[in-house]
Amino acid sequence: MSRRRGVDSVPDLVSRAREGDARAVARLISLVEDESPLLREVMAALAPHAGQAQIIGITGSPGVGKSTSTNALVGELRAAGKRVGVLAVDPSSPFSGGALLGDRVRMQDHATDRDVYIRSMASRGHLGGLAWTTPQALRVLDAAGCDVILIETVGVGQSEVEIAGLADTTLVLMAPGMGDGIQAAKAGILEIGDLYVVNKADRDGASQVRRDLRSMLALADRPAGTWRPPIVETVASKGQGLDQVVLEVDRHFAWLMETGELTTRRTRRARVEIEAIAVSALRSQWGDVSGRSELDGLAAAVVAGTTDPYAAADSLLASLVD
Amino acid sequence: MSRRRGVDSVPDLVSRAREGDARAVARLISLVEDESPLLREVMAALAPHAGQAQIIGITGSPGVGKSTSTNALVGELRAAGKRVGVLAVDPSSPFSGGALLGDRVRMQDHATDRDVYIRSMASRGHLGGLAWTTPQALRVLDAAGCDVILIETVGVGQSEVEIAGLADTTLVLMAPGMGDGIQAAKAGILEIGDLYVVNKADRDGASQVRRDLRSMLALADRPAGTWRPPIVETVASKGQGLDQVVLEVDRHFAWLMETGELTTRRTRRARVEIEAIAVSALRSQWGDVSGRSELDGLAAAVVAGTTDPYAAADSLLASLVD
Repeated sequence: MSRRRGVDSVPDLVSRAREGDARAVARLISLVEDESPLLREVMAALAPHAGQAQIIGITGSPGVGKSTSTNALVGELRAAGKRVGVLAVDPSSPFSGGALLGDRVRMQDHATDRDVYIRSMASRGHLGGLAWTTPQALRVLDAAGCDVILIETVGVGQSEVEIAGLADTTLVLMAPGMGDGIQAAKAGILEIGDLYVVNKADRDGASQVRRDLRSMLALADRPAGTWRPPIVETVASKGQGLDQVVLEVDRHFAWLMETGELTTRRTRRARVEIEAIAVSALRSQWGDVSGRSELDGLAAAVVAGTTDPYAAADSLLASLVD
Repeated sequence: MSRRRGVDSVPDLVSRAREGDARAVARLISLVEDESPLLREVMAALAPHAGQAQIIGITGSPGVGKSTSTNALVGELRAAGKRVGVLAVDPSSPFSGGALLGDRVRMQDHATDRDVYIRSMASRGHLGGLAWTTPQALRVLDAAGCDVILIETVGVGQSEVEIAGLADTTLVLMAPGMGDGIQAAKAGILEIGDLYVVNKADRDGASQVRRDLRSMLALADRPAGTWRPPIVETVASKGQGLDQVVLEVDRHFAWLMETGELTTRRTRRARVEIEAIAVSALRSQWGDVSGRSELDGLAAAVVAGTTDPYAAADSLLASLVD
């Protein structure tokens, strides 16, 4: 009659998630967030079923309308019959696991749609950050049968670049009146966008943003045969222009497949994930709590000035092969 | 007559830096920023001379007056005859190495003071971030004879926590009208401050910030014998209250030394630094560009779904001990 809570076996959770059971998906993503020891078994079970979803990153400065755009984009994708996953990542929050304030509220258009799965995640403060948890959460949603997964980050700067590393297609959102020009140059987002969206296109200054963006993109040195990021205008709050966004996203995806770039990007993503796991394993080995670890002794020697950090790192690495 | 540019030997640079030659210090920090292969030699040469400086982290949301406070604090420390280093770190900028816009301008009170060394650094986008470059830059300033080094971060969230990990004493700045309450809870800065500074204390709402802060800090569960962070009010733009800040910083430093916590913190810092160097060495080994590396093959298998990232990480680590 009632399901037991918290005692589900991994195979049970995985098979329920693959049938689209939202609770099982939620539970698996919580395991990812909590860095559960069960993850190893979960990921092994999911591996054969992943790789089907199209992954779209959505980034931009605070205030450009990321949540509204994501919401509108979900509507557009649902109209096309796609199952959609949404992952909202907050890289600025190393402590609070769980939901972003207000995020679910803004997404409530789709809260009761069984074919939309919405989840907020905090990325933790450990080495690796996004590199660690996000690909695993993506794999859960992917194996659960999402056709498209949107990753939205509320962060700025480095997290934008990391999101771009995770997505098949990265949308960079801009809006009039945000000083996005300087922002763009600073965060290097001119290098990461596959598609630029000028949102709030009905406001003063939108055409200026578009012109500035076009000239900045024109300055980028792109060899023949590479992708030239288009610029699309939207008014996400009114649902305007999103059809064009979906069209350009699909055109980009087709280009990724034709050129083999899709496999290149996904392989790069897997590299980062494998490395993050390997490094984490090493760190827990080095930080072994049973008595004074070798690393503690080396660190004390660095503080005392009797060795330097490079020589200490050499010793640490040498101890791996003993 | 003229010094050759860019061809200085490491021993020459180090001995000039130890004599307080600002150009040599600048050159050494540039080597850190550029992740020069010479760093190994530099750090070995600096190791015996470091560990003397008192390191103070300064953090807080944008707009609370970090640069103004840093500037005023430098004045206060100079009045006490201290040699001062200032390191302004911008963790949101993975691309642009070099100076923060306007930072040097705001610091110009001390631009011509030979006993103040001011430097802006971008932390790069690689794994490790602050963990890697900042301790090395601190070691340069330390060995160059700075009595006190101020690290200021313009970042929010995770970078604040990282700064706290690097400093002996962490100042958290707040100001009225910044919505700092929510901010504080979110970024976990109630856990990282050794001293809380309510800046702009002449403005409306300052006493409210102080009250809120006091009650939030009172909720924190601190065992007997641990440090209870004091709250100081300042008007940095008028130089008010900075004497009190210096007093409390010194009281905290005395507590650190009495309790042995100074060594604990510095050892923890050295651990993180050693790990970051070791991990970076492993990553360059894994990412070896000569032909297809093992990691590439593993990543391709993950993409194909024939293995999972944990099993791939196991293989990668196993290859270390072959």
